[in-house]
Amino acid sequence: MKRVVLAASLFAGLALLYVPVPASADDDDVVDYRRHLMSALNEHAAALGQILSGAAPDADAAVHIEAIALTASVALKAFEAKVPGGQSRPEVWSNWADFSKRMNEFASETADVAKLAQTKGNDAALASAAGALTCKGCHDVYRQEKK
Amino acid sequence: MKRVVLAASLFAGLALLYVPVPASADDDDVVDYRRHLMSALNEHAAALGQILSGAAPDADAAVHIEAIALTASVALKAFEAKVPGGQSRPEVWSNWADFSKRMNEFASETADVAKLAQTKGNDAALASAAGALTCKGCHDVYRQEKK
Repeated sequence: MKRVVLAASLFAGLALLYVPVPASADDDDVVDYRRHLMSALNEHAAALGQILSGAAPDADAAVHIEAIALTASVALKAFEAKVPGGQSRPEVWSNWADFSKRMNEFASETADVAKLAQTKGNDAALASAAGALTCKGCHDVYRQEKK
Repeated sequence: MKRVVLAASLFAGLALLYVPVPASADDDDVVDYRRHLMSALNEHAAALGQILSGAAPDADAAVHIEAIALTASVALKAFEAKVPGGQSRPEVWSNWADFSKRMNEFASETADVAKLAQTKGNDAALASAAGALTCKGCHDVYRQEKK
């Protein structure tokens, strides 16, 4: 009898192994942080889009360009921990070489535009900003649309 | 008969005057731009909150602090045009002296913290960041909650 109970406990234990483990608090933190970074980028890019279309003041261009460059400089690091979730597709990690190359390009191109804003002013920076903000190219491959 | 038609047209014309005029495209732009600015602040502040609670890397603190200071430096200007809408309460404009004073303090305090991040590093800046990010004080008075 004792042996049966033991076996049953063992099976119960094994069965537990198959229960999908909910994301830990730490994993939630990682996903939340990525979301804050990407949403901040999104808001600054939308503001810049308004400036480019004449719907918001040109004088604010450098603010958004610099905020984008700053945020882009830490964005890749936030994806290094392989924590699926949020709007990230699994391809972020299965195509890591391509994903990280593109994120590094994004960081370096936006840093160049921010430098242009500081040295040559808003008009010069705005002329290059659209070229550096090719968000869609990556989002099409690596971002899941919200359901 | 002609006179009746004329009178009817006149009434129709006057009646049209009472139809609430929808916000113009320009007004929508103003509200949209404010929303992008405040949402960007919100995302950076949330990221900073995660850093303060140990849920995101300390090393990123300066990025968010600087992005907040940059965005805060142009935020008040976006409310100067008296365009009600979005989450702004009418008190923004009826208490303009207080609202603009608080927004200027927000800009100057976050600029000080950004300077601290550049000169003394992240730890010193983080110690002062919470004091400068007293968002709730203003939001309670000037922000309408989303329905």
